[in-house]
Amino acid sequence: MRILGIDPGLQTTGFGVVDVDGQRLAYVASGTIRTTGLALGDLPGRLKLLFDGITEVAARYRPDAAAVEIVFVNVNPQSTLLLGQARGAALTALVNADLPVAEYTALQMKKAVVGHGRAAKSQVQEMVRRLLALPGLPGTDAADALGLAITHAHAGAAMARVGAVAQLSRRQHAMYKGGRSY
Amino acid sequence: MRILGIDPGLQTTGFGVVDVDGQRLAYVASGTIRTTGLALGDLPGRLKLLFDGITEVAARYRPDAAAVEIVFVNVNPQSTLLLGQARGAALTALVNADLPVAEYTALQMKKAVVGHGRAAKSQVQEMVRRLLALPGLPGTDAADALGLAITHAHAGAAMARVGAVAQLSRRQHAMYKGGRSY
Repeated sequence: MRILGIDPGLQTTGFGVVDVDGQRLAYVASGTIRTTGLALGDLPGRLKLLFDGITEVAARYRPDAAAVEIVFVNVNPQSTLLLGQARGAALTALVNADLPVAEYTALQMKKAVVGHGRAAKSQVQEMVRRLLALPGLPGTDAADALGLAITHAHAGAAMARVGAVAQLSRRQHAMYKGGRSY
Repeated sequence: MRILGIDPGLQTTGFGVVDVDGQRLAYVASGTIRTTGLALGDLPGRLKLLFDGITEVAARYRPDAAAVEIVFVNVNPQSTLLLGQARGAALTALVNADLPVAEYTALQMKKAVVGHGRAAKSQVQEMVRRLLALPGLPGTDAADALGLAITHAHAGAAMARVGAVAQLSRRQHAMYKGGRSY
């Protein structure tokens, strides 16, 4: 199974593509989609770049599923509104590419990748590098996106293991899944 | 010129299409795109319905420009985030259809349509009905969307009038335009 992780942002959106085969993870690609070439106030233009960028990544790597970071309310309500709009464009691109979308918080991602939820960005980068046997550290946005893909891979593996020994109730399913899934 | 007005919302998005020829306005179509058939938590699914609905409206009526309501921060930050994501999907559909997008606040729309910014929803419905010579009152969401299209038509007409007698400075341009335009 191939998973596309997305860490959405209005200025920089990280993406990471990971193949998972049982317990084995393999790096496929990662990078960032930047909208910083456009004027700050050009929100529709930025959303179009973001939508087109994710659409292109999905068409090129043909993932089977997507994992997106759940964003939270910011201290600045205007930032919340802007980030919400960026996330709306990102989710739209994923569902428009017919991908099932799972959502995880940064806390869930850090727990899955580093082992605890208070990990620093540099720890996420380092663990992602080790888990995917990368020759160097990925950038922070790409590392978060790869971390989301790994989180979804782990959630799927946990479900498969449990599924082999016991029938899962809906509630257990949600628990093992470790995130909201659509 | 044909203008598509959009009043975005996660549950109900109003749309309205108006033709403008100098001072003359003509009703083309209006309606709502509803996502209420889906589970409340299915945000990606809702955004897809919204994106697909606006894409379909744009393909059917082939407008030359779009006017979208500027949303504001809500008292409930979670609602702000949800509305932001809906608006992001709506803007994405418009720019993906290659439409130039102008943005107006509800206050600007009410001033343009009713004459003052504190107009009630029912006053907007009644004035939209009169200006477009409709046989009956449009629904509130459709009326707001038609109102946004009318606002953009007025802004364009004001610019054209002024443009005929004087060269406009960038600042005047922005003032007469009456809204942020991209």
